Amino acid sequence: MLKTAAKAGGLADRFRRVRATSAELAVGLSPEDQVVQSMPDASPVKWHLAHTTWFFETFLLSPNLPGYRPFDPAFGYLFNSYYEAVGARHPRPRRGLVTRPGVAEVAAYRDHVDAAMLTLLERGDAERLAPLVTLGLAHEEQHQELILMDLLHLFSCNPVAPAYRPYRPALRGPAHEGRWIAVDGGIVAVGHAGEGFAFDNEGPRHEVLLRPFRLFSRAVTNGEWLAFVEDGGYRNPALWLSDGWATVNAEGWEAPAYWRRGEDGGWREFTLLGEHPLDEDAPVSHVGFYEADAFARWAGKRLPTEAEWETAAAGIPATGLSPTGNTLGSGLLRPVAAAADEGFAQMFGDVWEWTASAYSGYPGFRPAVGAVGEYNGKFMANQYVLRGGCCATPDGHARATYRNFFYPHQRWMFSGVRLAEDA
Amino acid sequence: MLKTAAKAGGLADRFRRVRATSAELAVGLSPEDQVVQSMPDASPVKWHLAHTTWFFETFLLSPNLPGYRPFDPAFGYLFNSYYEAVGARHPRPRRGLVTRPGVAEVAAYRDHVDAAMLTLLERGDAERLAPLVTLGLAHEEQHQELILMDLLHLFSCNPVAPAYRPYRPALRGPAHEGRWIAVDGGIVAVGHAGEGFAFDNEGPRHEVLLRPFRLFSRAVTNGEWLAFVEDGGYRNPALWLSDGWATVNAEGWEAPAYWRRGEDGGWREFTLLGEHPLDEDAPVSHVGFYEADAFARWAGKRLPTEAEWETAAAGIPATGLSPTGNTLGSGLLRPVAAAADEGFAQMFGDVWEWTASAYSGYPGFRPAVGAVGEYNGKFMANQYVLRGGCCATPDGHARATYRNFFYPHQRWMFSGVRLAEDA
Amino acid sequence: MLKTAAKAGGLADRFRRVRATSAELAVGLSPEDQVVQSMPDASPVKWHLAHTTWFFETFLLSPNLPGYRPFDPAFGYLFNSYYEAVGARHPRPRRGLVTRPGVAEVAAYRDHVDAAMLTLLERGDAERLAPLVTLGLAHEEQHQELILMDLLHLFSCNPVAPAYRPYRPALRGPAHEGRWIAVDGGIVAVGHAGEGFAFDNEGPRHEVLLRPFRLFSRAVTNGEWLAFVEDGGYRNPALWLSDGWATVNAEGWEAPAYWRRGEDGGWREFTLLGEHPLDEDAPVSHVGFYEADAFARWAGKRLPTEAEWETAAAGIPATGLSPTGNTLGSGLLRPVAAAADEGFAQMFGDVWEWTASAYSGYPGFRPAVGAVGEYNGKFMANQYVLRGGCCATPDGHARATYRNFFYPHQRWMFSGVRLAEDA
Amino acid sequence: MLKTAAKAGGLADRFRRVRATSAELAVGLSPEDQVVQSMPDASPVKWHLAHTTWFFETFLLSPNLPGYRPFDPAFGYLFNSYYEAVGARHPRPRRGLVTRPGVAEVAAYRDHVDAAMLTLLERGDAERLAPLVTLGLAHEEQHQELILMDLLHLFSCNPVAPAYRPYRPALRGPAHEGRWIAVDGGIVAVGHAGEGFAFDNEGPRHEVLLRPFRLFSRAVTNGEWLAFVEDGGYRNPALWLSDGWATVNAEGWEAPAYWRRGEDGGWREFTLLGEHPLDEDAPVSHVGFYEADAFARWAGKRLPTEAEWETAAAGIPATGLSPTGNTLGSGLLRPVAAAADEGFAQMFGDVWEWTASAYSGYPGFRPAVGAVGEYNGKFMANQYVLRGGCCATPDGHARATYRNFFYPHQRWMFSGVRLAEDA
Repeated sequence: MLKTAAKAGGLADRFRRVRATSAELAVGLSPEDQVVQSMPDASPVKWHLAHTTWFFETFLLSPNLPGYRPFDPAFGYLFNSYYEAVGARHPRPRRGLVTRPGVAEVAAYRDHVDAAMLTLLERGDAERLAPLVTLGLAHEEQHQELILMDLLHLFSCNPVAPAYRPYRPALRGPAHEGRWIAVDGGIVAVGHAGEGFAFDNEGPRHEVLLRPFRLFSRAVTNGEWLAFVEDGGYRNPALWLSDGWATVNAEGWEAPAYWRRGEDGGWREFTLLGEHPLDEDAPVSHVGFYEADAFARWAGKRLPTEAEWETAAAGIPATGLSPTGNTLGSGLLRPVAAAADEGFAQMFGDVWEWTASAYSGYPGFRPAVGAVGEYNGKFMANQYVLRGGCCATPDGHARATYRNFFYPHQRWMFSGVRLAEDA
Repeated sequence: MLKTAAKAGGLADRFRRVRATSAELAVGLSPEDQVVQSMPDASPVKWHLAHTTWFFETFLLSPNLPGYRPFDPAFGYLFNSYYEAVGARHPRPRRGLVTRPGVAEVAAYRDHVDAAMLTLLERGDAERLAPLVTLGLAHEEQHQELILMDLLHLFSCNPVAPAYRPYRPALRGPAHEGRWIAVDGGIVAVGHAGEGFAFDNEGPRHEVLLRPFRLFSRAVTNGEWLAFVEDGGYRNPALWLSDGWATVNAEGWEAPAYWRRGEDGGWREFTLLGEHPLDEDAPVSHVGFYEADAFARWAGKRLPTEAEWETAAAGIPATGLSPTGNTLGSGLLRPVAAAADEGFAQMFGDVWEWTASAYSGYPGFRPAVGAVGEYNGKFMANQYVLRGGCCATPDGHARATYRNFFYPHQRWMFSGVRLAEDA
Repeated sequence: MLKTAAKAGGLADRFRRVRATSAELAVGLSPEDQVVQSMPDASPVKWHLAHTTWFFETFLLSPNLPGYRPFDPAFGYLFNSYYEAVGARHPRPRRGLVTRPGVAEVAAYRDHVDAAMLTLLERGDAERLAPLVTLGLAHEEQHQELILMDLLHLFSCNPVAPAYRPYRPALRGPAHEGRWIAVDGGIVAVGHAGEGFAFDNEGPRHEVLLRPFRLFSRAVTNGEWLAFVEDGGYRNPALWLSDGWATVNAEGWEAPAYWRRGEDGGWREFTLLGEHPLDEDAPVSHVGFYEADAFARWAGKRLPTEAEWETAAAGIPATGLSPTGNTLGSGLLRPVAAAADEGFAQMFGDVWEWTASAYSGYPGFRPAVGAVGEYNGKFMANQYVLRGGCCATPDGHARATYRNFFYPHQRWMFSGVRLAEDA
Repeated sequence: MLKTAAKAGGLADRFRRVRATSAELAVGLSPEDQVVQSMPDASPVKWHLAHTTWFFETFLLSPNLPGYRPFDPAFGYLFNSYYEAVGARHPRPRRGLVTRPGVAEVAAYRDHVDAAMLTLLERGDAERLAPLVTLGLAHEEQHQELILMDLLHLFSCNPVAPAYRPYRPALRGPAHEGRWIAVDGGIVAVGHAGEGFAFDNEGPRHEVLLRPFRLFSRAVTNGEWLAFVEDGGYRNPALWLSDGWATVNAEGWEAPAYWRRGEDGGWREFTLLGEHPLDEDAPVSHVGFYEADAFARWAGKRLPTEAEWETAAAGIPATGLSPTGNTLGSGLLRPVAAAADEGFAQMFGDVWEWTASAYSGYPGFRPAVGAVGEYNGKFMANQYVLRGGCCATPDGHARATYRNFFYPHQRWMFSGVRLAEDA
């Protein structure tokens, strides 16, 4: 689906490719599809396309490209997401009220900034800016995933159940039975260190003491989740955290976010490819932390900690092009059944996996200096860490140390479960 | 602005003209502008265009045109506004989440229905359907006004303050001083009777006993309202109804809905023509009943009852083409200063005028039979009657017996004040 | 039940009697019962006892009794209800948080003020103050009724369903069948004029033009309401005002406020005398305007206007000691079946009767001067008028011109329905 | 203040003493004071007295004392706090609506259960029940602290600012300067093991890897917090977690919960002893996690983890009778300045100290079997751990492994801050 060049070049090439991918995601979407905000947690596609552009204009072009003129002075206010240090901003829940600038003007904004960025990247001092450009591209990749999540939510609100892309079958067999894989304990190092790019919240690399544990070889499937539903899992308070049980009742939850009853009473699932009968072999998706935790308790297991997950994942190639990886480049746009049973399947791609770990700073964590320091640190409360990436994550974006985070009640992202147990 | 044929023909001609006017209102609006819903009280332009079409399809074509096939079966659910008798409907606050069908598909829907309607209107039994067609056209005219109100609200939420149409000066002088005009009391008949079209809530015509009163010759101006603001009108509880005072404080009201402080501290007003310095000669607009009532108390006067207003208005030509009328056809798209002082000015057009009358059924009122009976009667609680029409009301739509109604806190419509006093 | 002196004396005697009745209402209530506020619309019994006292201290004693020292300076803030002109006040929804002063201190406050008031009333200029004292007593009588309404609501929130007073059977037979009584139309005068006390909102007396109508001879009974419930009245949107239907669904209404399903599925009613099987002969009570209006539509009738009601009621003795009156002095504390069929039964007492009239000022209405002018006028929006008094209204408090008012969704008062129809 | 026997006897003696302490806490409170619920997070004193009694009745007497008859069958529903396994319960936010049973009946309930419990404890098999009785007593001690927290909140809502107990000066000098105390890192064991009582959430004891760190020798004082306030700490978004900043703005926070501006502009603090000028030497109290975290960031430091805190606290006597401990038995009822500078001061008592640790289960944590298993585990989300006890904690209740927990926005408990830094 995403016809971006396979071969990487320098930073300018990479800039072109990432930027092109964002534009490709919007192909086939009408202006109407791109302007609406379906809930305060989500943003319009158009806003994502503009905000990622604003990042380059604000943090790269304005301070570094002599003579650069902002495309439109009003955009600084309109397309700032949450950087308090950069000034006032349009309130998040009102992003969907801005019909002008429209889709065409945002495309022009992208072109304007892209041209200037390529000029900047050809200058002698481009190397100095490489870390910040790389951050901007990683940032844009995160918004590519958000575009798909937010679009799925928007379309799920439409009674006519539109499909973003046509359905194509996945060349996978049924889910394999799976098995428990033991991992040794001891003092292990987790977190990012070294040359490659990582977000500030992935470091510092530090040692933790782990007890031996076992992790399941694949993600929990829709079929397994169905057994939980049919066993009354959503009606039994003994399985739930107290806040989770309050949420289940307040929201009337009976199943994952996009499961729907068909006219024959059977479960169906709304996806980016429209509504289809539930694929019992595919990983369950769009469950929140509360549900993940309740399911694990029902199963007599538990969620892994993020240190456990990372230790198990170390050494597995974290790419959508790997045998087991189902990330954005696969074009499947949904989680699918795990391939043949060889070690840990689905660790990268398919669904983000909830961990038992509350999101907080690693020992010695210091946010980056300046406005970009607001990127991760200020969200370190009330959220839980997810690991591994999903079918909407750009290829190569995630890695073993990558820390995604969401509130425990949220479930519009591609989020699933992998079980753990003590050894 | 609105290039509709000046000369009226038969019902089919009138159908064509009214339908064309709706389409003209959307000219210059992007698909983005037409899909967003800025608050639960408002609807997207696209929705208005589709819903008015749904009315003809549901109440005229499906029951009366043999072989008629609905354009899309899903539209019955999507574009029903509030007719419980016709079946389930998409919830009002979620109208803005429906990005598909888009603007182009709604245009095709309109074409499909228009063609079928014209076929229907050429049939031998068209005369039998004339009352319902006329109702459908009056209904569409109401939505034409709503399109402009809702668009003004949407644009007011946009920090870049877009203009719907370019500003053109009005050929009016300053507001004349105005004067009190006495009206006799006695037993008078109010309400609609006779041949012409009227909504069910305008009848039955019935007698009421009026005391002699005086009505002011023009609407309250922005300049007069400014004196109220500067006298602390919005900070003095003694002037307000208890519910109004609670609203002022909860909403932080300091002035009419679209007044804004300029950088120099002076008041400006956001209009369909963009943001401009406050025109102190023009009628105040976008005030709610609570504000109208408080202003009248501050002025030592009162609001007229609807019977008083109607008695005074009887005999004044209710048309935008009249010397004093500023309705949609004027193309001004805003209230303007009253013309020379000759009797009652601005009774029809410029701004709807709040009355002291709670909206309820006239003695002997019976809603129309069938689903269209849900048109007016079920809203007869908690709202107040406004009279006269405004600068966004289609020419010839209003009349002396016409009863508009809104909740006392609402103020996104073109609503103003005319004062009354006891004789 | 209420052992107050039967024989009336001068104003001082009347003062003593009214004040004693308030204290008698609290007999049998624990301090716990008297301090809790069960919802923002209700107030603690203790607050009522203190606020009525504050009225005399603030409006009578402080300005008129030389050397009077307020019992406690903090009480002015604590026990002001809504008089903006008198200064800041404790927010209404927080009345239940004030545990100190307690019940005993409030009793001392009452004694202190009563003694000072009796001193004041013995002074030579007492006659000058009589209108304001009389207003204070009428105000206290209103709070006597509120004490019982609020207490019923409080006890209804208690799972153990306490009884305020022991149940005593009423010496009434079954509800008589009832009949329609015709009333002539014409120009009639309504509203208060003349010597006796009335609230400012009861005047000025003025003429209105009435059409001939018929009013039913008794109130709608629980049995008749049960037929409405069993006919799906609460599930049929065609019967309801739009705002009413939204309320029914938001609140999950299925029956009047205090109806409850027994273990055998039969309806029971919670009353001031505890929970009992529904008395099908007694008037329905604790229904809101929305319900009253829906019931009337279901029955093919309508609610009377307040002018109709008042015209019909003129000449009927408005006292609890009359043959048909069931007001506070009856000690029944609940509405009961109408006595023998002789003209209009239950017009005064049993239940307040909803009218079709929105509450607004009569022509020429001017609020009283000063803080007491906030008594009625500022509530003239969004409420509906009820007429006649109820089983909790002090004897002699109501009269034919008396205008009670509540919001259309409220139903914790003793409110019922009498049907009307056009002649 | 609390005249309980100093000398401990057997379990029955301890039962008597703990139960007597609860009753002593209510001395001086009126029935009014004991029945009101000032917010959903708080409960009425009367409810605490009944609920702790219900615990013994439900978990000890009914299953274990032959022939025991519950005092009142309705109490099982009324006084269950959150044990889903035991059946339905009265909703928490409605606890304040239950005026009956009143204070006197709850006292009789306590007597009834106490007598039966003492009978049970004299039986031969009492030893078998000792762990559950001990849990019940620890549970009651927690509610003793809640009684004082909830009462402080209730009184803080009263404009007359009542004092629970008379003010007595503390025999402490000014706060000493304080210093950083280094603690070694390495593999350390944390959590409870062994004979003594502990809650299930304190175990299993397990090893963690700590880095060397420093902890400050005393708690942050009001004077230090004042510097934060005056430096604009509550107005600088850079200091706050994103959720915290949203809370500051939504709640309008400018200082700790019970700080108030005096008429001269100086800060005062509302306490259980009434309102007094701010004691700058005393530990700051009534701050939430968000504030604690922001203060630490402002100070260039951080909060300790719970493992760090526990490691530092190991070996310090955890008692109110210790030289440094200010717990309930001191009778001071407020945090006071630290005594002379000798090692860690104020670790136990004065104020609970926020840690950086989100509340979750220790490795291998399993809730207790049965309904009492709902005691701690189901709250392990969205809350943060506090350590050490406070001036309202019963003597001997807390210990080094004790884990208290609250939501990050809550601040009606006696909660303060001790700073940490990396070595």
